[in-house]
Amino acid sequence: MKVPALDRLLERLAEVSDLSRAGMLLFWDQRVMMPPGGSEARAESVATIGRLAQERFVTAEIEQLLEELRSLEESSDYDSFEASLIRVTRHDFEKASRVPPELVGELRRASALALSAWGPAKEASNFEALRPFLEKNLALRQRYVECFDPAEETYDVLLDDYEPNMKTAEVREIFIELKDALVPLIKEVEDAGEIDDSFLTGEFDPARQRDFGLEIARRFGYTDEEWRLDQTPHPFMSSPGAGDIRLTSNIRTNDLSSLFATMHEFGHGVYEWGVDRALARTPLGSGVSLGLHESQSRTWENLVGRSRSFWRFFYPRLQQVFPAQLGSVDEEDFYRAVNRVHPSLIRIDADEVTYNLHIILRFELEQELIDDRLALEDLPAAWNARMEEYLGIDVPDDARGVLQDMHWAGGNLGYFPTYALGNVISVQIWERAKQDLGDLDERFEQGEFGELRDWLTEHLYRMGRKFTPQETIERVTGSRIDAKLYVRYLREKLAPQPA
Amino acid sequence: MKVPALDRLLERLAEVSDLSRAGMLLFWDQRVMMPPGGSEARAESVATIGRLAQERFVTAEIEQLLEELRSLEESSDYDSFEASLIRVTRHDFEKASRVPPELVGELRRASALALSAWGPAKEASNFEALRPFLEKNLALRQRYVECFDPAEETYDVLLDDYEPNMKTAEVREIFIELKDALVPLIKEVEDAGEIDDSFLTGEFDPARQRDFGLEIARRFGYTDEEWRLDQTPHPFMSSPGAGDIRLTSNIRTNDLSSLFATMHEFGHGVYEWGVDRALARTPLGSGVSLGLHESQSRTWENLVGRSRSFWRFFYPRLQQVFPAQLGSVDEEDFYRAVNRVHPSLIRIDADEVTYNLHIILRFELEQELIDDRLALEDLPAAWNARMEEYLGIDVPDDARGVLQDMHWAGGNLGYFPTYALGNVISVQIWERAKQDLGDLDERFEQGEFGELRDWLTEHLYRMGRKFTPQETIERVTGSRIDAKLYVRYLREKLAPQPA
Repeated sequence: MKVPALDRLLERLAEVSDLSRAGMLLFWDQRVMMPPGGSEARAESVATIGRLAQERFVTAEIEQLLEELRSLEESSDYDSFEASLIRVTRHDFEKASRVPPELVGELRRASALALSAWGPAKEASNFEALRPFLEKNLALRQRYVECFDPAEETYDVLLDDYEPNMKTAEVREIFIELKDALVPLIKEVEDAGEIDDSFLTGEFDPARQRDFGLEIARRFGYTDEEWRLDQTPHPFMSSPGAGDIRLTSNIRTNDLSSLFATMHEFGHGVYEWGVDRALARTPLGSGVSLGLHESQSRTWENLVGRSRSFWRFFYPRLQQVFPAQLGSVDEEDFYRAVNRVHPSLIRIDADEVTYNLHIILRFELEQELIDDRLALEDLPAAWNARMEEYLGIDVPDDARGVLQDMHWAGGNLGYFPTYALGNVISVQIWERAKQDLGDLDERFEQGEFGELRDWLTEHLYRMGRKFTPQETIERVTGSRIDAKLYVRYLREKLAPQPA
Repeated sequence: MKVPALDRLLERLAEVSDLSRAGMLLFWDQRVMMPPGGSEARAESVATIGRLAQERFVTAEIEQLLEELRSLEESSDYDSFEASLIRVTRHDFEKASRVPPELVGELRRASALALSAWGPAKEASNFEALRPFLEKNLALRQRYVECFDPAEETYDVLLDDYEPNMKTAEVREIFIELKDALVPLIKEVEDAGEIDDSFLTGEFDPARQRDFGLEIARRFGYTDEEWRLDQTPHPFMSSPGAGDIRLTSNIRTNDLSSLFATMHEFGHGVYEWGVDRALARTPLGSGVSLGLHESQSRTWENLVGRSRSFWRFFYPRLQQVFPAQLGSVDEEDFYRAVNRVHPSLIRIDADEVTYNLHIILRFELEQELIDDRLALEDLPAAWNARMEEYLGIDVPDDARGVLQDMHWAGGNLGYFPTYALGNVISVQIWERAKQDLGDLDERFEQGEFGELRDWLTEHLYRMGRKFTPQETIERVTGSRIDAKLYVRYLREKLAPQPA
């Protein structure tokens, strides 16, 4: 059946999607390729493209088309492309129509300028150099919040952009459960004695690290036809178009962390890669939320990439690449070292357990900032105090403290909690996959990851944004978001064995 | 004086400029970075951005603003920013308003798809694989031509996009003058005996070539702050924003041609770089025409980069980098080899003299194609016949024949003549610069190129698009476009010395 209103809607939405994807390329390029001199012009382009995407979406025509299509939506199966498209577009439209395009443009411009300032500020460990940009971002975020009806908590509005329908109170509850379980687990692990991971620090040739990261990614499903991998100070994934997946990794010469960063970004990439291509150029054509996205990056980084069976296959290869550093280290010691639990300064280097405390700290600070309970000038001190309180860590400078992440420079308040939610969700999906696939370890030991990737594509990735995050989780796992399985996983993996 | 209509116009034009620059980044990325899987999505993005740039420019509002600003234009000095802006925008508007945005989008999409097909077709030397894309491009170009009042010659309409106000008949006259002078010159040079350039072929490490190209570019004015240099099969320059200049070069392992390609693209880059920053985000903020642009790429590649004084400085350095290949070749022999006149297959590798015949051939074929006097299926044979006729060259395959350039895949009919016009203009400007600066050779021998760059910036680059190409040439040189100086330059440089 040919529905002219649907065709017309798809055409308008394709235009908006093209603009958003062009915006993604502008962002990727700014972080990876652009010479610094281009910053000002780029901020203007990014602002213009962002504003136009908004203007071309929030139009009387699209409003009218959505109205006309109400009956098609109601007569179509909930799971159908048509019903999902109209439902999700209506939800997006209602949200977007609250925000004036000028504000969207301003948010994008401020973010681009702040991101350009963030790198040098971090390098110089100079929070004050970044502060005016953060002030601007925060003020704009507060204007953004005011576009919506008052929520139970201000932070709900921010969170909803990254984890739709999730409430601050729910997150808080999950985080309390995590804190209650993890703080004693950290103590238990520490009491059990130190694990030696000194061999993970040393000289590791960057070109070999990159090649090895690529070798892993290729085993996972990376191809030169549709992917690329670049170097950045702060790894991220971007997909400026279907069939065009871009990973970035931070290759340091003195450790092997880039391997985990590459696997992490692969997880984001393969989620976008697996979205049904029939959904391309529609609002359904990407991962559904950052929590779900992070569940996949953490799956490939941690559940796969820090498993014994993964290293059963890859460790002998890694030893061949770095014989001087690892030739005399046995597999079990290596496995324990890359899973060592130990409070540390940098979130992206944190182990699976303490990682969540880095997130909880940011979650709390963000709420205080948006509610003006904490002034930006006091942020570094608040950061440092809480690092001491939660992780017993003394922060030596802002570069390794409050300036370490680019999110706040990017204006992304409300983003961080999705990382810990992702950890939680990852294990729920993982347990479900194992029910279907049986023993994955056997396959990982052979360097075979295709069945897992195909299962995830079939059960999760291909859905794109057709359903809400909660619906998506329930469709994959049969249950709602729940921290129990995650906590059990960590306990089983990390709790000291009885003597 | 604050003029609200002017501010409003500038705001609208800035948006259009941001869209165009985003389009340039999409193009650059497609050629340099994008994995092949992204081709289809990219074609859509490019089409959307191109169509939107057109839609947002050809609006009733801009028409109205231009009308309101007529009195400001008339009361302002012809050279002022205000008068130039309004004048040039009106000219652009009148032209753009002829072309429906849908057609602009279609042209962009077809071009992006054809460019993606061109690489593999060239690699396989398979013209038939590219032909459907060329058919599409040609049909769209013919629709484009029909948007305008009938011109004296169809080709005038195409040419005007690249060399505004220039007529096919004028180009033909210049090309006849060139042909008449160059064909006998080529014969004279050939009769004088072969020049040995065998040492220019061999193994030249690509990384060293890149570094040496960069060393030259840095001496010319390249900085890491505002420039970058990448590798592509077909070199080009792009500036996706003020302060963001991107060169590409084709580094081959078996010759040193990348050095000249890098200098060539530097010439394009420095022209964009030198445009007055106050013109950024307006229609005035770039080089004025492709002929003028090419005059600068040829200046830096040939007038500078193939001069004796340039190599006086750089040749000892080059010998140090490639001692095995060049250690025993003396400077004069090297100079003569890089200036050797010899008919050859590939335009971008052609010497300064025969280069123009490559252009004349394309100029003629393009006119026949657009007028349907030549069918695309007969193009390879026509190409090969004319290569034989003009250059005495037997074309062994289409990869080295009709498929060698990407312009036709890009849909750019009417572009090629600007290359030869650029050669002509370059010498006119060069002679003028020498009148002001005196002996440049002395400075080149010291590796100093700043005075030339500053003079060109001051007298040419900074003007951007404020004046027509003809006005621009007259302002720089005091005379109209004229092939005499160029022919004299070639004669003096290349004619065999009397024994």
